[in-house]
Amino acid sequence: MAIITPSRRVRRTPFTEGVEAAGVTSYTVYNRMLLAAQIGSFVEDYHHLKRHVQMWDVAVERQISIKGADAEKLMKLISPRDMSKMQDDQCFYLPVIGADGGMLNDPVTMKISPDHYWVSLADSDFMLYLLGVADALSLDVEISEADIAPLAIQGPKSDDLMAKIFGDDIRALTFFRHGIYSFEGRQMHISRSGYSKQGGFEIYVEGTEYAMPLWNRMLAEGESLNIRIGCPNLIERVEGGLLSYGNDMRRENTPFEAGLGKFVTSAENYLGKAALMARPAQQMIRPVAISGDIPVCDRAWPVYADGRKVGQITSAIFSPDFNINVSIGMVADSHWDAGTKLEVETQDGMRDAEIQTQFWI
Amino acid sequence: MAIITPSRRVRRTPFTEGVEAAGVTSYTVYNRMLLAAQIGSFVEDYHHLKRHVQMWDVAVERQISIKGADAEKLMKLISPRDMSKMQDDQCFYLPVIGADGGMLNDPVTMKISPDHYWVSLADSDFMLYLLGVADALSLDVEISEADIAPLAIQGPKSDDLMAKIFGDDIRALTFFRHGIYSFEGRQMHISRSGYSKQGGFEIYVEGTEYAMPLWNRMLAEGESLNIRIGCPNLIERVEGGLLSYGNDMRRENTPFEAGLGKFVTSAENYLGKAALMARPAQQMIRPVAISGDIPVCDRAWPVYADGRKVGQITSAIFSPDFNINVSIGMVADSHWDAGTKLEVETQDGMRDAEIQTQFWI
Repeated sequence: MAIITPSRRVRRTPFTEGVEAAGVTSYTVYNRMLLAAQIGSFVEDYHHLKRHVQMWDVAVERQISIKGADAEKLMKLISPRDMSKMQDDQCFYLPVIGADGGMLNDPVTMKISPDHYWVSLADSDFMLYLLGVADALSLDVEISEADIAPLAIQGPKSDDLMAKIFGDDIRALTFFRHGIYSFEGRQMHISRSGYSKQGGFEIYVEGTEYAMPLWNRMLAEGESLNIRIGCPNLIERVEGGLLSYGNDMRRENTPFEAGLGKFVTSAENYLGKAALMARPAQQMIRPVAISGDIPVCDRAWPVYADGRKVGQITSAIFSPDFNINVSIGMVADSHWDAGTKLEVETQDGMRDAEIQTQFWI
Repeated sequence: MAIITPSRRVRRTPFTEGVEAAGVTSYTVYNRMLLAAQIGSFVEDYHHLKRHVQMWDVAVERQISIKGADAEKLMKLISPRDMSKMQDDQCFYLPVIGADGGMLNDPVTMKISPDHYWVSLADSDFMLYLLGVADALSLDVEISEADIAPLAIQGPKSDDLMAKIFGDDIRALTFFRHGIYSFEGRQMHISRSGYSKQGGFEIYVEGTEYAMPLWNRMLAEGESLNIRIGCPNLIERVEGGLLSYGNDMRRENTPFEAGLGKFVTSAENYLGKAALMARPAQQMIRPVAISGDIPVCDRAWPVYADGRKVGQITSAIFSPDFNINVSIGMVADSHWDAGTKLEVETQDGMRDAEIQTQFWI
């Protein structure tokens, strides 16, 4: 494995110095920013996440601000999900598509006010699509990357840690809702959300100068809760079936194929609607258990049944808690039923596999 | 420095196995793909590039195909450069902008036929902007990432190597023109271009299955020419003033600020024209020599004069041939004249600097 070369183009985040101080050993690049992929032992990190509380630098979500008289119009134009009933304190998971029905990103969107939205990006420059649409239609909207660095607090002790800093009111925040809370006199948007199944919050730190003071305060207050600096954990993510745009689905896939059909609810004439409706899923995301030793899943592994290719695996890793290799696959309708036996072609050879009833957690 | 974690999301290229075999020690990520940043000694690589011939995996340029009845209409809509006289064998360097006049990318575009263009991207998902514009206006055009992996042959012996494989006709190809040449019966587009000042070619390898056979043939034929597997060389790039989108200019900068005003020639009513014309440059890209030892330039270094911030340095490295730290800066009009003395604030402290008359090569 090779090291990553520093450059301004692959951006540091307002929290990078904290991640470095925690002893990061491996990065990935996400939205052209550094995202820690390993800090200390990978397996210890996984067990810790399920028992305690972790702080993650997720500034890579790069908050896109969409503001102006046409903000709602633009959001309705690009959203397969019904935005009409979205409340001002609500977060929406939003699979977004192009005119061919293929997915371009799967951000979480927050409504800040009727003419102002924030979009937390998955790994594609979806801001450029928003700009293209807005520019072409001369929409009255300002689209920019705000000076906001999201910080995730994840794990079962998240409420206890957050309450120490933001007060007990934060415990009342419900899933995928957001509110404004105060840190040393600074108002911050906080949502109950995050890229794990262990519960937690995301703090939208507005103003780079507040990033490390909040980070250091969290570390100090979290000491008694056994806080750990972590990062999205691949094992826990795959166990929980949390999809990764770019890994598990891409522009060639529709939201239906990604198993996100329940978010396709808009009655508006959004871009891509006609094409999407004409593409019922003939393959879909499935949990797949793989036997034997497996290498790092750094490319799509073809999946076979009876010698015929019927899908691919795009995320896979050994799960200590379930004592099996957990994985996320995209499998053809002919072979997507639970219990179906398959073969997976890794770079180290063929492995036996089986479709599961559901993801592991 | 940390290692880079492999995942499908950060893609391998069709040449990655060749890069690995050559002993790559450091990667960067460019357009969500692996790009070698160091293979063996950095300084040896630099001297070699100026004397011999190198082969670079530049698949990260990700060829975007724009095809259909409205292809030319779309290109004119997004191009500040006059596309009307572009010939079918021509390559255009194209600073592209959004409605506010800010740069979104600086690709090289090739006209394949009157209704078909290829776009070699710099480091942003500009394809998403093209899709946004095309979707919003319901243009009759297909925009996709073609299965094309560009391979660069760079250095003074490039013609000799290329002639061995593609025949002597290739020597007649002139700068920023492209033609079709044959490799083992496969037709390939080739242009005289590349991201160095040492001369050379880019081969647009269409079809992943041809990638490693061509790579291996190049290696074999290049042995007598002292061929080396290399990668864009930071020292040579900065000496030559070759800009890097994301490092040296971004959405906040206009083409004028990037020193690319000569490419703003279109008489069409392209997106962003009005805003761009209203933004004459008050700062511009400049070659800056910096004294003393400097650390890795992994963030923007503020530039001061008389205690006031007047710009920033975004790429910088020591040049063995010129025995000075060469750098690319963006400097305010009050201080952009050659000979102006400045101070640069690196993460290791202040350094003396001076604006140069021109880039070094």
